[in-house]
Amino acid sequence: MAQYAERLDEVFHALSDPTRRAVVRRLGTGPASVGELAEPFEMALTSFLKHIRVLETSGCIRTVKRGRVRECVLEPHAFAAVDGWLAEERAVWESRTDRLERFVLSGTDDEREDGS
Amino acid sequence: MAQYAERLDEVFHALSDPTRRAVVRRLGTGPASVGELAEPFEMALTSFLKHIRVLETSGCIRTVKRGRVRECVLEPHAFAAVDGWLAEERAVWESRTDRLERFVLSGTDDEREDGS
Repeated sequence: MAQYAERLDEVFHALSDPTRRAVVRRLGTGPASVGELAEPFEMALTSFLKHIRVLETSGCIRTVKRGRVRECVLEPHAFAAVDGWLAEERAVWESRTDRLERFVLSGTDDEREDGS
Repeated sequence: MAQYAERLDEVFHALSDPTRRAVVRRLGTGPASVGELAEPFEMALTSFLKHIRVLETSGCIRTVKRGRVRECVLEPHAFAAVDGWLAEERAVWESRTDRLERFVLSGTDDEREDGS
């Protein structure tokens, strides 16, 4: 559970930056070298490499060194953590909405019947 | 578009912290005062208030002052930005997977045709 929470911290943090989200978008179309990925951005390569490292640490991408070129590959399953979290939250909101709806429609408050 | 990107930055940043995600989970069950929300956390109130402010700035929650109590309410529609972003990414990956599948199924294999 702690590991799942940590993974969520890292994935959400990785996605909180427009450069990193643009890299994810580009890698969705297929692998690319760090050089190719950096091209559209007016940014020093060292700054860009920091973004790549954040994405790699979070598990959103992996990088493989081929000779002198570092190739980046998207890891779409990392986003399953975000999907899972959203689904859990939605289940909480919806069960609340259902309770409110039952209360309005029947005039009965389940929680009150339980004595709480 | 720039505004959408900024909103995404803020929402992803807000969700990158376990305390803030726990507050979102709690507010999913209904509104609560800052005092009630702070209770489960071993944290100075000033530190906790910073988390509340990050959540409010991102649009994930809103707060209303009632007398001396500040009440917090979840804004589930803020998460639609995250949902939308994930759906866009998935569309990109899936169109790539479809292209690869068509390539494999069409039986085009240049190397074999060359006799290798």
